[in-house]
Amino acid sequence: MKLFDFNRAPNPRRARMFVAEKNLDIPRINVNLFGMEQTSPEFMALNPLGTVPVLETDDGLYLTETVAICHYLEQLHPEPPLMGASAADQALVLMWNNIVEQQGMFSIAEVLRNWSPGFANRAFPGNTDYAQMPELIERGRKRMEQFFDLIENRLQGRSFLATEDYTLADISLLAIVDVASWVKVNPTIGRPALGKWHDAASQRPSADA
Amino acid sequence: MKLFDFNRAPNPRRARMFVAEKNLDIPRINVNLFGMEQTSPEFMALNPLGTVPVLETDDGLYLTETVAICHYLEQLHPEPPLMGASAADQALVLMWNNIVEQQGMFSIAEVLRNWSPGFANRAFPGNTDYAQMPELIERGRKRMEQFFDLIENRLQGRSFLATEDYTLADISLLAIVDVASWVKVNPTIGRPALGKWHDAASQRPSADA
Repeated sequence: MKLFDFNRAPNPRRARMFVAEKNLDIPRINVNLFGMEQTSPEFMALNPLGTVPVLETDDGLYLTETVAICHYLEQLHPEPPLMGASAADQALVLMWNNIVEQQGMFSIAEVLRNWSPGFANRAFPGNTDYAQMPELIERGRKRMEQFFDLIENRLQGRSFLATEDYTLADISLLAIVDVASWVKVNPTIGRPALGKWHDAASQRPSADA
Repeated sequence: MKLFDFNRAPNPRRARMFVAEKNLDIPRINVNLFGMEQTSPEFMALNPLGTVPVLETDDGLYLTETVAICHYLEQLHPEPPLMGASAADQALVLMWNNIVEQQGMFSIAEVLRNWSPGFANRAFPGNTDYAQMPELIERGRKRMEQFFDLIENRLQGRSFLATEDYTLADISLLAIVDVASWVKVNPTIGRPALGKWHDAASQRPSADA
């Protein structure tokens, strides 16, 4: 098994944190996104979307999409459960993970990719150029704040986002909260429940993965 | 158990098709999106995102996100498996379902919601107004065509999208292919593998759900 990875990007970090929480040791292959290695013919043959992480399984399957990679590892190594034990908990993990991806990650990406000179023509991942549209920055910021308000509300009186345990949904949220600094936002300011959650999540050894 | 539903929308249709393939009978509550019932205080209390489908479980849990609803039903009613039997197949279903949601559904939504007068100020679901941005229509169309090209390539020599069986990934793709007609696109034109797949999927009784 091999994990195609890039140290600086939030989605590979989710996979790395998941692997660390499972105490697994999976060799990693660095794909330098800053050097656009993800759009090389060799890498696009493995993953036509040109994204990391990608998990190469021992059967020679290439799994993309962080949730799919984590689910595969969860089936092979069920302990500790990071995607819920009961049917309800499993559903809650998938639900909150999806919300974090589609509301959180996508709104921050909309800001970052339309704003940062480093993402010129990289409004989306992959090997197709999409021009930046500065008018999307404000919209992305508004959606991002809405997302963090939703999370603040959810975290009232809770230790973890989806269930009574630390799960993939928390891992995904940690990656998102931290990557918000790339667009000069600290979402924990004015959001005490998120701040408390973030302090605890950041102290887990997996946060350094 | 109850399913909050709206007959005309693609995501509730995915849930209905899943229920039909499982031969389940789940009472449905209609949420009239055309009348903006999804933004009523009563509904937003159940689902602050203001989206359907929502599954109310017998434990009084409200599950949003189609993938989470389907995973819950899969655990309660494993036969026939619609989300993969082996670890690899389960991962492939989650992976392709995510790709269909994030590349397919989102690109079509970008076109539709920024183009159709019926979606004025509804650039995103939920109860917050986001103005239409006509400059996103062309970008959305380009991303949509790229998505269907990816799918055409994947379907070469295959009967189904993710595994050797009809799964949630196919259900999601069927909803997406059909909803493309709302933006005046028939993605099967010039894509013979997708066309053959679409003919077969459309003939399943669940397609009428």
